Amino acid sequence: MQVSFRSEEIAAIVQPKQVKGTTTDVVHGIASLAAAAPGDLSFLGNPKYRAEAAATRASVVLLPLDYDGAPQPNQQFLLVENPSASLARLCSRIEQLLWPKPAPGIHPTAYVAPSAKIASSATVGPLCVVESDAVVGERSHLQGQVYVGRGAQVGDDCWLMAGVVLSAECVLRNRVRLQSGVIVGSDGFGYEFVKGRHEKVPQVGIVLIEDDVEIGANTTLDRARFSRTVVGEGTKIDNLVQVAHNVTIGKHVILCAQVGISGSVTIGDYAVLGGQAGIGGHITVGKGAKVGGQSAVTFNVEPGTYVNGSPAMSYMLSQRLEVLHRRLPDLFKRVDELEKLAGKT
Amino acid sequence: MQVSFRSEEIAAIVQPKQVKGTTTDVVHGIASLAAAAPGDLSFLGNPKYRAEAAATRASVVLLPLDYDGAPQPNQQFLLVENPSASLARLCSRIEQLLWPKPAPGIHPTAYVAPSAKIASSATVGPLCVVESDAVVGERSHLQGQVYVGRGAQVGDDCWLMAGVVLSAECVLRNRVRLQSGVIVGSDGFGYEFVKGRHEKVPQVGIVLIEDDVEIGANTTLDRARFSRTVVGEGTKIDNLVQVAHNVTIGKHVILCAQVGISGSVTIGDYAVLGGQAGIGGHITVGKGAKVGGQSAVTFNVEPGTYVNGSPAMSYMLSQRLEVLHRRLPDLFKRVDELEKLAGKT
Amino acid sequence: MQVSFRSEEIAAIVQPKQVKGTTTDVVHGIASLAAAAPGDLSFLGNPKYRAEAAATRASVVLLPLDYDGAPQPNQQFLLVENPSASLARLCSRIEQLLWPKPAPGIHPTAYVAPSAKIASSATVGPLCVVESDAVVGERSHLQGQVYVGRGAQVGDDCWLMAGVVLSAECVLRNRVRLQSGVIVGSDGFGYEFVKGRHEKVPQVGIVLIEDDVEIGANTTLDRARFSRTVVGEGTKIDNLVQVAHNVTIGKHVILCAQVGISGSVTIGDYAVLGGQAGIGGHITVGKGAKVGGQSAVTFNVEPGTYVNGSPAMSYMLSQRLEVLHRRLPDLFKRVDELEKLAGKT
Repeated sequence: MQVSFRSEEIAAIVQPKQVKGTTTDVVHGIASLAAAAPGDLSFLGNPKYRAEAAATRASVVLLPLDYDGAPQPNQQFLLVENPSASLARLCSRIEQLLWPKPAPGIHPTAYVAPSAKIASSATVGPLCVVESDAVVGERSHLQGQVYVGRGAQVGDDCWLMAGVVLSAECVLRNRVRLQSGVIVGSDGFGYEFVKGRHEKVPQVGIVLIEDDVEIGANTTLDRARFSRTVVGEGTKIDNLVQVAHNVTIGKHVILCAQVGISGSVTIGDYAVLGGQAGIGGHITVGKGAKVGGQSAVTFNVEPGTYVNGSPAMSYMLSQRLEVLHRRLPDLFKRVDELEKLAGKT
Repeated sequence: MQVSFRSEEIAAIVQPKQVKGTTTDVVHGIASLAAAAPGDLSFLGNPKYRAEAAATRASVVLLPLDYDGAPQPNQQFLLVENPSASLARLCSRIEQLLWPKPAPGIHPTAYVAPSAKIASSATVGPLCVVESDAVVGERSHLQGQVYVGRGAQVGDDCWLMAGVVLSAECVLRNRVRLQSGVIVGSDGFGYEFVKGRHEKVPQVGIVLIEDDVEIGANTTLDRARFSRTVVGEGTKIDNLVQVAHNVTIGKHVILCAQVGISGSVTIGDYAVLGGQAGIGGHITVGKGAKVGGQSAVTFNVEPGTYVNGSPAMSYMLSQRLEVLHRRLPDLFKRVDELEKLAGKT
Repeated sequence: MQVSFRSEEIAAIVQPKQVKGTTTDVVHGIASLAAAAPGDLSFLGNPKYRAEAAATRASVVLLPLDYDGAPQPNQQFLLVENPSASLARLCSRIEQLLWPKPAPGIHPTAYVAPSAKIASSATVGPLCVVESDAVVGERSHLQGQVYVGRGAQVGDDCWLMAGVVLSAECVLRNRVRLQSGVIVGSDGFGYEFVKGRHEKVPQVGIVLIEDDVEIGANTTLDRARFSRTVVGEGTKIDNLVQVAHNVTIGKHVILCAQVGISGSVTIGDYAVLGGQAGIGGHITVGKGAKVGGQSAVTFNVEPGTYVNGSPAMSYMLSQRLEVLHRRLPDLFKRVDELEKLAGKT
């Protein structure tokens, strides 16, 4: 993001308790204390980096109130209650510049079917498609080249970034944010094997995505065979994740990148799945459970437990076995020795 | 899918042998016996759920002929030969509602190059691109924002969902169904290391996809270095799968989600690869072979065998080793004991 | 690729030292010696296939100068210094036919914001979007349905294939090639857990992609929280790879398909990561290091080393443990025996 803030503008945003030094530099970037160069803003968020604050070349530095060092020439220190919170406030301001509220209206290059209903405060960007009977709610934003299928529903205050596909009849509630390339409502992977061929089982359900869900780039969510594939309120899904048909994901779940969830799985509220983990079909992962990265879950996971490994087991056991596994060379030698003692070799 | 069936309409479709009870509810959804609410249809497909049939709140229930219970008030039982088959018939009807045959023709917002040939019965949806010399066959449907590259060929009765890319010169035979975001014909990943740099090896082959293949959302298939990357007749590929250049996939193969197949691999007819499995370069997986989820195949797999694990081995061996692996803590203790007995500790 | 070369045209490209035999066949394809049929060109690139050269049915065969066999009727042998290099020259010619230099200009169906700057030698294909203040450099090519966000920069001689998304403010240097479906600049996956909910941390940095980088289909690269996610010069990334926010990838790195790289990871120059490998957050992989396929890297990797396994360890150790692991059944038997000898069972 090419930002451009004068130091007074930054002070106006973060409202420092104390200001030390002055700079004529315009701030164009944010960087860590060690990496910052003139023209950057930096911050001391973690006390362990305190030594780096003295040496940083940043033009403007956010520091805690008890920081007692002095700035270098052409450097400004802004002392604040909570440098991380102040940085977040600044980032929010930058975010508004990066993603300014688009003007409402339908771009002249978009195709909107006559029977689609677009709220007057919504924005439909260039070369979007909104098919018949689809609905787009208040203040929602289709960035560009978004596809909204027949009868699909987008709630209020949703953001669908460039290239998102929301397939026929699928539903987004409110404040849902879909990153580019997300596919909602592709057919579930269901076939019956009949006379040497895989015959397609119709997939006629939908995907329902509840309030405040965010889904990462190129993630795919299949429509249910019938009924619904559901993603619960507040859940966050990273990039390139696969959610199969008839999956039910609870509220405030975290799915890291490249996770794969097989058909008819249930994931409890507040569960966290590490990157590249896979969950077998029809399994239940309990509320608040944790699954380690690259794990393969082949059985139900109890609420609040932590499993790991491929195939998965309790995290404690997986760690213990990992230690013993690395001691196998030693164990083989010990058994060799015992056999020698026993006169076997 | 927002369906709306009166009970008489359902009876007309499933042709029950016997009807018990009546309902004035309109059916808007399908659900399992336990999950169903008034307004749902449910079914007893598996005898083990027989007890749930008595308690279900579904408005209409499909039951086998030998089911002897009685419906509750405002509930209708339809007794049929095979409830699952009746449900499938109903779902096919819903499918026609969900995906009605689109009217033939080229949407006015699509761009079709003058030299492209579009069959008069084909449908090219909004904001599609069909480049020069490309061909789209009879009754094929490009849903919306589909890209068909120069000289590419789409056979008859194909469905290309929103956002599909069929790159230059690639070929789809007949009745191929590509879910949203599928990329057919990206460049293979081929480089030669020359003087400290990876120099690109031209990738000038194509991808050929035979009859009745279905490919899941955001799956990628690379064009061959030269000649062809091939997906055989009737093969079904799930979401987010990677098929590298010069791969040959046989007929009626199943590739589950997030499988990765390296360059020049051959997969035999009727093979089944579990989710997130990876196949190393130039390997052959034999006809009818099975590969477990998350396995890493590093050698040829014999026809009809089942391999598992990372690295993969015979399924039987992988299961045996898994059991022994979990007994390592015990084994270490036993060796400790033996050493004590031998006076070593 | 449907090529069509007469044998004289091939000879003109590869400039053979000696020609044996003649053919009237037109060459339409390239195939291995064993697979070739009349109408194909083939080549002897590896001496171990010498026997196959005598039996090949190819119409034209590229052979080394010391090859002494004679062609069959209607078959032509072209003897050259280096058959593989000659084939590469031919493939480059085919590549120019497959991807001819497009005419410069903006397709009338594209949407280009008035404040965007498109070089006069650049090509913006059908139904592309270039948002305000974006820049597209000399001779760069947006194939079709490409999205270039607000303020994004495309350097010179870049190729963005169909369906690529380059999000706001992100930067491509020169000669960058993005395969279809690549997403550059989706939001990083950053949340803070506050009062039972995951609150979004603004992601306001960019992605910077340096010269000569190539990125495979449907790969995703997240923008930094602030500052930059960087892909260094000459690096090649395969399909369906995940690059999280604030990752720094060095120069001339190879990332195979479906690799996942967590936030704030640093990958050194010339590192090579095998397919489906995962790198945990904040880890450094040293210069020239190798990571085996499906490995899970949970600690820093020293420059020039080779690690493997999930969790990863030195390649040598992983191989040794793998051998011993498969000998566990034997080890359990040996301990049984020892216990019998010790009178314990």
